[in-house]
Amino acid sequence: MAVRGPLLKDELDIVIPTIRDLAFLEQWRPYLSPYHLIIVQDGDPTKKITVPEGYDYELYNRNDINRILGPKASCISFKDSACRCFGFMMSKKKYIFTIDDDCWVAKDPSGHEINALEQHITNLLSPSTPFFFNTLYDPYRAGADFVRGYPFSLREGVPTAISHGLWLNVPDYDAPTQLVKPAEKNTRFVDAVMTIPKGSLFPMCGMNLAFDREMIGPAMYFGLMGDGQPIGRYDDMWAGWCCKVICDHLGMGVKTGLPYIHHSKASNPFVNLKKEYKGIFWQEEIIPFFQQVKLPKEAVTVEQCYIELSKQVGEKLNSIDPYFTKLSEAMVTWIEAWTEINAAHKKGAEAVSNGTVSK
Amino acid sequence: MAVRGPLLKDELDIVIPTIRDLAFLEQWRPYLSPYHLIIVQDGDPTKKITVPEGYDYELYNRNDINRILGPKASCISFKDSACRCFGFMMSKKKYIFTIDDDCWVAKDPSGHEINALEQHITNLLSPSTPFFFNTLYDPYRAGADFVRGYPFSLREGVPTAISHGLWLNVPDYDAPTQLVKPAEKNTRFVDAVMTIPKGSLFPMCGMNLAFDREMIGPAMYFGLMGDGQPIGRYDDMWAGWCCKVICDHLGMGVKTGLPYIHHSKASNPFVNLKKEYKGIFWQEEIIPFFQQVKLPKEAVTVEQCYIELSKQVGEKLNSIDPYFTKLSEAMVTWIEAWTEINAAHKKGAEAVSNGTVSK
Repeated sequence: MAVRGPLLKDELDIVIPTIRDLAFLEQWRPYLSPYHLIIVQDGDPTKKITVPEGYDYELYNRNDINRILGPKASCISFKDSACRCFGFMMSKKKYIFTIDDDCWVAKDPSGHEINALEQHITNLLSPSTPFFFNTLYDPYRAGADFVRGYPFSLREGVPTAISHGLWLNVPDYDAPTQLVKPAEKNTRFVDAVMTIPKGSLFPMCGMNLAFDREMIGPAMYFGLMGDGQPIGRYDDMWAGWCCKVICDHLGMGVKTGLPYIHHSKASNPFVNLKKEYKGIFWQEEIIPFFQQVKLPKEAVTVEQCYIELSKQVGEKLNSIDPYFTKLSEAMVTWIEAWTEINAAHKKGAEAVSNGTVSK
Repeated sequence: MAVRGPLLKDELDIVIPTIRDLAFLEQWRPYLSPYHLIIVQDGDPTKKITVPEGYDYELYNRNDINRILGPKASCISFKDSACRCFGFMMSKKKYIFTIDDDCWVAKDPSGHEINALEQHITNLLSPSTPFFFNTLYDPYRAGADFVRGYPFSLREGVPTAISHGLWLNVPDYDAPTQLVKPAEKNTRFVDAVMTIPKGSLFPMCGMNLAFDREMIGPAMYFGLMGDGQPIGRYDDMWAGWCCKVICDHLGMGVKTGLPYIHHSKASNPFVNLKKEYKGIFWQEEIIPFFQQVKLPKEAVTVEQCYIELSKQVGEKLNSIDPYFTKLSEAMVTWIEAWTEINAAHKKGAEAVSNGTVSK
């Protein structure tokens, strides 16, 4: 149960979908600048994004995505933050932390700045406990443990694939809730991290999220959203449903809770309603689908699970809307692109280690 | 979603298994004295328990239990706090709050005393959400709601049957953990209440527990523990496993989290180890049994579910130890006794309302 720490160098990339406000990178500088940034520009490729001095980064716009993926670029959303998953694909690191540019450094109740990245890494490096609920929350945390009645055979836990962080100030509400409660702020600091139990789905938000790319990367696809698609704001939800059923199938853990970021501003609820309204209907059928989906025993890798899931999406959700046939195909394209890009990374790394390419 | 409050009179009983320290009742006086107490004395019936002035109470010792239940008294444990379930049976109220006499009034981080009973009632009177995980915890709490991606069809929730409260200071650890970490204290105040998802079992502790007797009472049986039994300290765990599978089957909710009490003193780990060691082995088979148990559609009341569960316990757990045959029979006896006593209550209440008996 030893937890490595506090931070990993050369093992983590930070993926950000567009940066509209450079003050964002200034505020996060002490925490993020030691790492490599992958910025995926979601809109007009002619717009220039300026990254302040001292940050090591790569930036991809739509032209880059088209050039790198060719026809397979069709699986990457345009004019939507769902494009961030292209950054997950391009990364060569084990861990990813992805954060939105309207998320700021939060403070804990004692007024200290929260190092969100450090908490995510702690979450990912300690096991999860999806098979039985521990009432004192994360049993691996200092000062906590498994309570009386917790089976000893389950106390080693399972590896953690995903760390889902939360938001102080503006909560992540859907458009109808935003409209009904325009002024509601989340001021409650809940000092807990917990494993989401096996068999239970959750709404995964992409605002403040970290994951182990080697464990779950191929399932972290944010779907087809935005320009030319009938739906938006369900990119992270889609990834969350897919990831959770695959984690459950493969015995990997998903945690939620700490760390908090400070979410500065609610997006426009009227615009959101337009993006969401089909999703609000559709999720009433999509969620039962994911609650009942069974993956075959033979699916033992994330890629195999994801291809199987794509088939079932094509067969069982296409009655909702032809969009799901397209999405099912895009899921396959995504896996093909992921496999190609990652094979190329591997080949590149081998060439470097063989001395045929200089570092 | 309206929450009644803050407190219910004539709808709640407080059940306490023995009171060794009268200071306990003095400290809780502002919170507990408006209610009726049912004290179930777990040991020697000749010992006198003195209850301070101003408390309305009834007290049962072993002689009373034998007299009231006759041969069916065999289902009630002796010399073990498991006897508290006799109090649940004798109550005529809708809600029960049960608390151990080594639990004191806790303070929140701002130094204010926590009214545990009030929080339990709030938990019981607001719905639960077992079918989908809400990342901002209890969505019915002031300042919180369902997050983006939470299905609208599930936002009404389901009725809450159980409110499981936690412990500051001495955590509820098993004997091996107590031995390994004799000095560990729980100092983390986690400001959250959450629903335990459907399909997930949890270790239910009886120290600080409230429930809706009309909804789940017949399943709140604390088993055969203590004098003459091969096992102790699994009374609440047993009740928790049974209650959770029945709640899941009947669509009722179980919450855990707030309120905290201050647990003053760890019980002796050596004594605990002696009581627990069989349970520590056995739970490795009992828990998979409860994780897989299926109740038939025809079982639509808690009593029917419990009888069905008793059969399966007799059939599937008896290979562990003959104790489970005895326990299976005791579960049936418990339901018979519960039914008789509650029929008598009802008859009594009808006689009162018909005017044949004066109030």
